[in-house]
Amino acid sequence: MAGSSFGNLFVLTTWGESHGKAVGVVVDGCPAGLDLKEEDIQKELDRRRVGQSRVTSQRKEEDRVEILSGIFEGKTTGAPISMIVYNKDVDSSKYESIKHLFRPGHADYTYQMKYGLRDYRGGARASARETVGRVAAGAIAKKILWEKEQIRIIGYTKQVGRFKAQKIDFSQIEQNIVRCPDPEVAKQMEEAIVQARKQGDSLGGIVEVVAQHVPPGLGEPVFDKLDADLAKALMSIPAVKGVEIGTGFAAAEMLGSEHNDPFTVIDGKIRTTRNHAGGILGGISNGEDIIVRMVVKPTSSILKTQQTVDIFGHPAEIRVEGRHDPCLCPRAVPVAEAMVALVLVDHWLRNKVSQFDKL
Amino acid sequence: MAGSSFGNLFVLTTWGESHGKAVGVVVDGCPAGLDLKEEDIQKELDRRRVGQSRVTSQRKEEDRVEILSGIFEGKTTGAPISMIVYNKDVDSSKYESIKHLFRPGHADYTYQMKYGLRDYRGGARASARETVGRVAAGAIAKKILWEKEQIRIIGYTKQVGRFKAQKIDFSQIEQNIVRCPDPEVAKQMEEAIVQARKQGDSLGGIVEVVAQHVPPGLGEPVFDKLDADLAKALMSIPAVKGVEIGTGFAAAEMLGSEHNDPFTVIDGKIRTTRNHAGGILGGISNGEDIIVRMVVKPTSSILKTQQTVDIFGHPAEIRVEGRHDPCLCPRAVPVAEAMVALVLVDHWLRNKVSQFDKL
Amino acid sequence: MAGSSFGNLFVLTTWGESHGKAVGVVVDGCPAGLDLKEEDIQKELDRRRVGQSRVTSQRKEEDRVEILSGIFEGKTTGAPISMIVYNKDVDSSKYESIKHLFRPGHADYTYQMKYGLRDYRGGARASARETVGRVAAGAIAKKILWEKEQIRIIGYTKQVGRFKAQKIDFSQIEQNIVRCPDPEVAKQMEEAIVQARKQGDSLGGIVEVVAQHVPPGLGEPVFDKLDADLAKALMSIPAVKGVEIGTGFAAAEMLGSEHNDPFTVIDGKIRTTRNHAGGILGGISNGEDIIVRMVVKPTSSILKTQQTVDIFGHPAEIRVEGRHDPCLCPRAVPVAEAMVALVLVDHWLRNKVSQFDKL
Amino acid sequence: MAGSSFGNLFVLTTWGESHGKAVGVVVDGCPAGLDLKEEDIQKELDRRRVGQSRVTSQRKEEDRVEILSGIFEGKTTGAPISMIVYNKDVDSSKYESIKHLFRPGHADYTYQMKYGLRDYRGGARASARETVGRVAAGAIAKKILWEKEQIRIIGYTKQVGRFKAQKIDFSQIEQNIVRCPDPEVAKQMEEAIVQARKQGDSLGGIVEVVAQHVPPGLGEPVFDKLDADLAKALMSIPAVKGVEIGTGFAAAEMLGSEHNDPFTVIDGKIRTTRNHAGGILGGISNGEDIIVRMVVKPTSSILKTQQTVDIFGHPAEIRVEGRHDPCLCPRAVPVAEAMVALVLVDHWLRNKVSQFDKL
Repeated sequence: MAGSSFGNLFVLTTWGESHGKAVGVVVDGCPAGLDLKEEDIQKELDRRRVGQSRVTSQRKEEDRVEILSGIFEGKTTGAPISMIVYNKDVDSSKYESIKHLFRPGHADYTYQMKYGLRDYRGGARASARETVGRVAAGAIAKKILWEKEQIRIIGYTKQVGRFKAQKIDFSQIEQNIVRCPDPEVAKQMEEAIVQARKQGDSLGGIVEVVAQHVPPGLGEPVFDKLDADLAKALMSIPAVKGVEIGTGFAAAEMLGSEHNDPFTVIDGKIRTTRNHAGGILGGISNGEDIIVRMVVKPTSSILKTQQTVDIFGHPAEIRVEGRHDPCLCPRAVPVAEAMVALVLVDHWLRNKVSQFDKL
Repeated sequence: MAGSSFGNLFVLTTWGESHGKAVGVVVDGCPAGLDLKEEDIQKELDRRRVGQSRVTSQRKEEDRVEILSGIFEGKTTGAPISMIVYNKDVDSSKYESIKHLFRPGHADYTYQMKYGLRDYRGGARASARETVGRVAAGAIAKKILWEKEQIRIIGYTKQVGRFKAQKIDFSQIEQNIVRCPDPEVAKQMEEAIVQARKQGDSLGGIVEVVAQHVPPGLGEPVFDKLDADLAKALMSIPAVKGVEIGTGFAAAEMLGSEHNDPFTVIDGKIRTTRNHAGGILGGISNGEDIIVRMVVKPTSSILKTQQTVDIFGHPAEIRVEGRHDPCLCPRAVPVAEAMVALVLVDHWLRNKVSQFDKL
Repeated sequence: MAGSSFGNLFVLTTWGESHGKAVGVVVDGCPAGLDLKEEDIQKELDRRRVGQSRVTSQRKEEDRVEILSGIFEGKTTGAPISMIVYNKDVDSSKYESIKHLFRPGHADYTYQMKYGLRDYRGGARASARETVGRVAAGAIAKKILWEKEQIRIIGYTKQVGRFKAQKIDFSQIEQNIVRCPDPEVAKQMEEAIVQARKQGDSLGGIVEVVAQHVPPGLGEPVFDKLDADLAKALMSIPAVKGVEIGTGFAAAEMLGSEHNDPFTVIDGKIRTTRNHAGGILGGISNGEDIIVRMVVKPTSSILKTQQTVDIFGHPAEIRVEGRHDPCLCPRAVPVAEAMVALVLVDHWLRNKVSQFDKL
Repeated sequence: MAGSSFGNLFVLTTWGESHGKAVGVVVDGCPAGLDLKEEDIQKELDRRRVGQSRVTSQRKEEDRVEILSGIFEGKTTGAPISMIVYNKDVDSSKYESIKHLFRPGHADYTYQMKYGLRDYRGGARASARETVGRVAAGAIAKKILWEKEQIRIIGYTKQVGRFKAQKIDFSQIEQNIVRCPDPEVAKQMEEAIVQARKQGDSLGGIVEVVAQHVPPGLGEPVFDKLDADLAKALMSIPAVKGVEIGTGFAAAEMLGSEHNDPFTVIDGKIRTTRNHAGGILGGISNGEDIIVRMVVKPTSSILKTQQTVDIFGHPAEIRVEGRHDPCLCPRAVPVAEAMVALVLVDHWLRNKVSQFDKL
């Protein structure tokens, strides 16, 4: 496979460039008989959309999704579901002047080296706009997981710069423009982002995703561990530079007796008394909440002057204009949720054939 | 695919349980004409082997590899390379008494839920013994990368508990039993591990891998980003709970102007003046050193008494005897190197067909 | 994978129903730097288009292709190439009255059993309309094969009913509406088809494809033999019930001394003196013409009254109206060529990484 | 994937050369909890074994299988099942003298062109010995299909040279050494094979496989049609040059009204009144018997002198000594059955996730 597809049984293939005609996705392997309409997709795309607030890009895109196939009389048929979103507010003029320059932190240089040419307009495939297809596919995954298992997937901005959420109140997440579950810290984050923008700079942060009510047994033992696939899924989101599960990197300083989650019985079910494992043991879900985090680097496009080189190998300076999010976290939240949902639905389907007696 | 295979063009499939007859691996897709002999594999397996020192398990395994296919007159033929290592020092007696108990931190419970039964002896597939096959396959990958591109892959223990390497001297790594590149800190790490073992406990840590001399262009733009595949590869190693690239999680507190690596020209080559990106931009290698880190949780098997539940749902206590590494980092180093090598060789092959003009 | 994708390195994913909004294809893995424009695709689609003559369906479709992604300044960029063809002349009225009936020879019953529901309009995914995407992707494959290796892929109708081409004159193929390389027999075929239509019936036939100038070495030794992949590719075309290579089924009555193609040297090249093998030995191309044949069953949609059953399990009679090709061969020719091209380009790319010394 | 693996959910990977140390297979994706012991595998291998009669090779191999992993207390655990068969009666002496010659009809030349070198001993991977792994994996597939669905897979020699079975009596198949279901014709076939051997020549033939009691719904609609995957599976068997389903190539001369199988109701079940389709409509099983045929070319290894070329490009003559089957059909029967079983079990598993309501 050439890298634009993801999944084993529930498979999405995304296509489209930031400044091309459209972006889209084909979802193959969705079981037949699921109620699905464009609104189910649209509501997730609206959460990812640009132009939502003063902390995001000012590009105006309606991001109106159209389902082109795979649905008949309101239900999925088992056929591939093709979805398209046209690019409407494309302005490539800002890219003309820098088309010979490699933007630091961007994929310009690496695409040029890989392919011998590149579409310099708006990052093309490297643009976060590619994630429209992920969110659209993820909306279907979420719907299946919710209807079948009442799995709920909740993402939020946990940190922006040095500001970290001190409490996690899910009801607050969509009440502020940074999607922080702590309303006090949300204000600080927002202010920090606005300041960074004013200085022509950008900020990094951390997004956390919790998946509740995941049944035990999802994940394959060796290479396709549930956490391994989550790590790939999240690391494949533009600007992500790290992923951790449960206590993650903090485990380096823990003792085994501290880190191991003791088993107990609650309400007749086998549970753990704490959740350092983040809901995954040996690569397989254990029924506790799945907790994953990813770090999002500060947006590479900044107005500040940077040193670079042009495609002829000459030193140059660059200021990256255009319309960019000064911090990617708020809009990365629905993308991260989508990727978690896609991994879970794929493993949920795979797990249906694990036991001989249940077949 | 059922999860025991890894790679797209250079594909390995591992098999075998910790307390079964043997463990092994089949490598399919190795180009024909590579000089390969058992010693090439053995030297890497010897680095992974147990019973090496007082900080590792006392199980005695020669881990003598036998190549069963794919080589003719000292060269690979393009056919699958099957390699086997027999388990010789198997002692399952310690597992009889706990076969009805779920060991905290282990995959016992999740395997039971997934499969409805489990091989309780020594962790079976969840055991680190499965990584014999990865290291054997990785040895081939390393050889290809070295002979063709002079790529060198160097792993080491960066942190154990609260002890962190303060300097990185590659020449020191194999001079101490914890594989720490800082000889002073190595002693502290060793002492800490011995103490943890005495207390019936275990320690976590961090392993870092550097890949030098990787050509630009490796990695696919969207889902199969080089860092995404590295993240999956490393997260699939037993006990790993987090992966980061370059500055990783530290990027959360950085500004774009700090994090972006400016381009420059050195010796006629386009380079970056620093390497916060860890050698990867937009999912594709940029020619700088690739730097990845993974956190290894403290060994789950500890002698200390823990609360648990048996397979009938009754509360119980458990002390996990057997022969275990009190800190997994030293032996995780060659495994991490192998996984990095396997990702790189697969993407190196994939990249051979990226440009029309070069075909 | 869920079955709508094909290929390993050059991967197409088709989507869309016969009576839906559009049909399309995403091609992932096309090398960067290939000159490609919509006309390159359109000329192949025009050969597959309906409404071309009195021996094909009367549905009128322009089949105008639009490339939505993957091209920049006239060249492929390495990104997925998304292509769409809108359905314009959709008339589902004929299907309303038979929506509860299972058409004999069609996939109605099997889709219903597989999915529990079905889109009854025009066969949906089972329609030959799905092959629009294959032909579009195949056009790219053909272009690569031609530009790089001067591979030429020529398909034609070899047999319709009991009329068999007696001579093979490639220049004649596109000179008659049945695409027969023998102009005399072409007239007989045409007449037979018209007669069958008049009687409310349909005719089967055989399509042959020759690939000239294929270099030796394409194909993998065991499961992904070149002929195995060709067999799958052709058998996946609607209505195909058999595939053979070279002498094919006639080999059953041959002696080894007759069937083996002796090697010789012609113009300094190793060649065979005849080509019973159809250009493939041990699953790998040998440099001779690749010759494959497929049998196309008579069109299942016929006006004659047939016995059937409705979805409630009651016996019924059915006459299948609508617009159908009375013989599928003429329009199956470009589809068969496309599938052969897709297999060849995929194996051509795969073969680029076979030899260590050439990497 | 590099071509030595087959299947999507039930995946086998074969390895090993004809004259190497051993041949083997890894089966990944077998559901946990299936009773499995070595005898289940051995009985199928015994049917494939050489040295069984005067119409097969005189190589003596016990073909004793050893299961190395994946079984615990008599049941599959969900882990990969590794099986090995050592090569015991290897005699490579006959190949020394012809190691520079390309045997007509064999893969010598194509392997040399693909890989730049080759293991000339006994055909290496191109040898029918590779099919040991297929038969071993197929034995597991058969067991699952039988225990869960009472699917029975019956293969037999339908034709040898010009001798065709006139009646199909399954009870007769294993009563004669050519595995022909017609005892009278069996004698003629046997005689013909013995005659061919005496003349230093070989014979082709046709093998048919019937799968009874296959539930409707297996197969995916577009590329992974059940018949497409069967075609690939059978065409990947050494020496096979054609595959057909149901009436196969005879459909070319049929009318739609003849070929379409009318639906009816028998014992409350929807059935067809005849089975020209061979049990597959639109790529999906319809509940009727699945009927597939493959043509096996006459054995390429013959004693008669043939014209060839050596690896230096010089004309030469060759007589292929060694121990060969003068007709491959009898021993191809269990291999064909295995491949059919492998395709069916894979699609049976895939079909478990087709309907939302049943998940």
